[in-house]
Amino acid sequence: MLLRVRAAVAQLAAGLGAGAGAQPPAEPRGGGAGSGASPPAAAFCRPAFLQLTPEELRRADDHTGRAVQSPRDGRRRLPWRTGYAEVINAGKSQHNEDQACCEVVFVERRPSPRGRLMSREGCGELDGGRKGFYFHYWALFDGHAGSGAAVMASEKLHVHICEQLRDLVDILQDPSPPPICLPHGPGDPTRVSVAEDDGEVPNDAVPRFHLEKAVSHESLVIGAIENAFKHMDDQIERERGAQHLAGGCCALAAIYLMGKFYVANAGDSRAIIIRNGEIIPMSREFTPETERQRLQFLALLRPELLGKEFTHLEFPRRIQPKELGKKMLYRDQNMNGWAYKKIEEDDLKFPLIYGEGKKARMMATIGVTRGLGDHDLKVFSSNIHIKPFLSCFPEVRVYDLTQYEHCPDDVLVLGTDGLWDVTNDKEVAGVVMEVLTSYEPNDPCRYTMVAQELVVRSRGVLKERGWRLANDKLGSGDDISVFVIPLGGPGNYT
Amino acid sequence: MLLRVRAAVAQLAAGLGAGAGAQPPAEPRGGGAGSGASPPAAAFCRPAFLQLTPEELRRADDHTGRAVQSPRDGRRRLPWRTGYAEVINAGKSQHNEDQACCEVVFVERRPSPRGRLMSREGCGELDGGRKGFYFHYWALFDGHAGSGAAVMASEKLHVHICEQLRDLVDILQDPSPPPICLPHGPGDPTRVSVAEDDGEVPNDAVPRFHLEKAVSHESLVIGAIENAFKHMDDQIERERGAQHLAGGCCALAAIYLMGKFYVANAGDSRAIIIRNGEIIPMSREFTPETERQRLQFLALLRPELLGKEFTHLEFPRRIQPKELGKKMLYRDQNMNGWAYKKIEEDDLKFPLIYGEGKKARMMATIGVTRGLGDHDLKVFSSNIHIKPFLSCFPEVRVYDLTQYEHCPDDVLVLGTDGLWDVTNDKEVAGVVMEVLTSYEPNDPCRYTMVAQELVVRSRGVLKERGWRLANDKLGSGDDISVFVIPLGGPGNYT
Repeated sequence: MLLRVRAAVAQLAAGLGAGAGAQPPAEPRGGGAGSGASPPAAAFCRPAFLQLTPEELRRADDHTGRAVQSPRDGRRRLPWRTGYAEVINAGKSQHNEDQACCEVVFVERRPSPRGRLMSREGCGELDGGRKGFYFHYWALFDGHAGSGAAVMASEKLHVHICEQLRDLVDILQDPSPPPICLPHGPGDPTRVSVAEDDGEVPNDAVPRFHLEKAVSHESLVIGAIENAFKHMDDQIERERGAQHLAGGCCALAAIYLMGKFYVANAGDSRAIIIRNGEIIPMSREFTPETERQRLQFLALLRPELLGKEFTHLEFPRRIQPKELGKKMLYRDQNMNGWAYKKIEEDDLKFPLIYGEGKKARMMATIGVTRGLGDHDLKVFSSNIHIKPFLSCFPEVRVYDLTQYEHCPDDVLVLGTDGLWDVTNDKEVAGVVMEVLTSYEPNDPCRYTMVAQELVVRSRGVLKERGWRLANDKLGSGDDISVFVIPLGGPGNYT
Repeated sequence: MLLRVRAAVAQLAAGLGAGAGAQPPAEPRGGGAGSGASPPAAAFCRPAFLQLTPEELRRADDHTGRAVQSPRDGRRRLPWRTGYAEVINAGKSQHNEDQACCEVVFVERRPSPRGRLMSREGCGELDGGRKGFYFHYWALFDGHAGSGAAVMASEKLHVHICEQLRDLVDILQDPSPPPICLPHGPGDPTRVSVAEDDGEVPNDAVPRFHLEKAVSHESLVIGAIENAFKHMDDQIERERGAQHLAGGCCALAAIYLMGKFYVANAGDSRAIIIRNGEIIPMSREFTPETERQRLQFLALLRPELLGKEFTHLEFPRRIQPKELGKKMLYRDQNMNGWAYKKIEEDDLKFPLIYGEGKKARMMATIGVTRGLGDHDLKVFSSNIHIKPFLSCFPEVRVYDLTQYEHCPDDVLVLGTDGLWDVTNDKEVAGVVMEVLTSYEPNDPCRYTMVAQELVVRSRGVLKERGWRLANDKLGSGDDISVFVIPLGGPGNYT
């Protein structure tokens, strides 16, 4: 998130004890393998699956060496032999503000009074008689203006997804279309399972609702993930005071459930699938430029949110007062093209969207427009809140793994913008193919090697004039985090 | 637009003298070839380029025979040998509510006091010393709830596009990037040409505006087209009272300018390019389903527009009062997936978006969400206006003709939904290839033959059980209009 949030934002408070006091995660997040207590200093917090020793943690936090971190041989291996690597930034913030999480989560059907009677008949009975299913989960969180939101999101987002899915255990395991209406609400203690309610369907349902829209199982999972992001954001809002949670974060999560990948993105991280050398985009970035029209539309309808400081119109540059009455290029919420307008007094305000590419900012403050947290973020030295313009909702794309034959070299790559800023999709695909061909298909380390290589190539090498890539261009000075998830091949789906 | 607007809308008034009193178009719109007067009855109005005799006009208006209309041999030929064909609906409205226009338009630079001094130096000096350029223009307008808006738009939209482009004559012909700021506004009588203003650029411009955004010539043309649609809509609003303009229309326009096609679409017509057998979509449809989130967002922010009759939430079907307290699938403006919510009193209101596919409606009234007109359209027996939810702005897609080698069989097809409802992209491409191969590449009629065949195949043949396609499925009972525009080949670019 280098340069993406103006350094001057009032809330910038690095290293405030983020995460402290939160419910302890399933595994300790570094800071002493095996210790069940909260990490001693949340600022040093790294992903639990890295199982870093205190010494390793100090090395990971060193801006000078920028050592690449990966799960070590002999320690816990990530599911599907997933590769992971990360590196800290070159000094733009005190600690690595990226966070990551990788979990296999059991979604247990919510208990119901009459449920036990049915439990032997339903499918999906797992885990010692508990009814439910598993999902696999990988997620990256790219924090800004403090690490609190990213840390909490990395600890809790999968819990919220699980919580949303619990009401759907019966429905998702039933091949017939999801019921439009449930007699009693999910979560309601009097709720009974769908199967038990057949007798309760009103007789007039079929003729009455000929305009009934079909809803797929897939769209229920998408809705569950969308709402989980919202609940995650609400939790950060509720607990930010008590837990001193600073900042916000982009969130990119891949969920594997019942044969399909659901890739949910809110922010400027990116996911691509590389299949047989072909690149399949699995996300798009949400920035002031890509979401310009949504933001301008909101500003037009709710001008009070702009606090008389901003105009919802976009101009190619700032207007000077002496240019009043001249004609300048502009565009509004309806336009994709540009046109000239006569400059009026109101146009002298700062444009809601300003700048280009990585330098594009909303309200001169933030360079991403979706994500979690940022509830206290304000325009510098003003009382104008940014949050109303941010969306915590992800875009979810679905990839059906069962529709294709996958070979061991087909992968899903998740990366924070530290990767993509200097290494484009095609280059990433090139590295993936290059590294994978140099390892045996059943080598358990090959995906980790890819992740490490991607991080190293994007970080570059420290020279006299800073971190440099092989082509001598500037390497990424941002935090970089990468997952490389194999889509096929022997023994990966365990 | 069959079934796209509830028949009961208050404004449905077929055959009101639409277009009467409007400025006469460059050529009379049927109703007597060669007569310079306004058409005697706008309801019978057909595209001017068809040059229909009164007898032909009566035949074109016959719902029973549904004769296909095309420009006749020996009369004026359309530019580029463009093919065109149309047919009236099977009785859903009194007259054919589609309209079409095809013009070559000269954009003359707006005169300026000092302009004459420069006129010999500039490029683009054409047409007896007048400075400017030409654009080619093809457009389809699919009217609903009256023919007035479609007729006026077919007469005037290209005039508005020309008007918007007039201010850009110098800028578009200058290969350097468009100026961000003009010393005096286009249309301002004191305006001087860009070339004349070089000396007036402030010295501090370069260091001061390092964040200046580059704007392309192409995006100026897009902006001009977008604003032309807005001005067209404003004109319909202004003149609808005096001229009894009823209804609204979808608008699809293709503009060829300086080597590029600009395809602007507002509504549910469609444009595709067929190049070497490959289909390239040049538009997308704007319907309650495709624009759901924009509409829900507006309704959420401006609930007063719903008049307490509608809810911005979408449900898969109507909710019955007895279902209060149960859980039902829903989605809001943030969601693409579905989730369950407990039904509350407010959810019993009618959903803003309701129905599926061709039956999807906004506020139970209209099946398209962009277009021109509809200023008086209200929800049946209410005072709730539809117009705030409609957008008159098109999406403009650009196709650079100079980037590809085109053969005589490569075409751009524009069609109203009467075509696409029964004949999909692939089938249209099949017909195009099939018909073109049976005519010589230099046969001037071949594109007309394609357009006719597309219309005939979509209309079908009248049998005992109505209009039937070759596969015995129901043919389109809607008005059908098709342009087939060749992209290459000898002698077409004249």
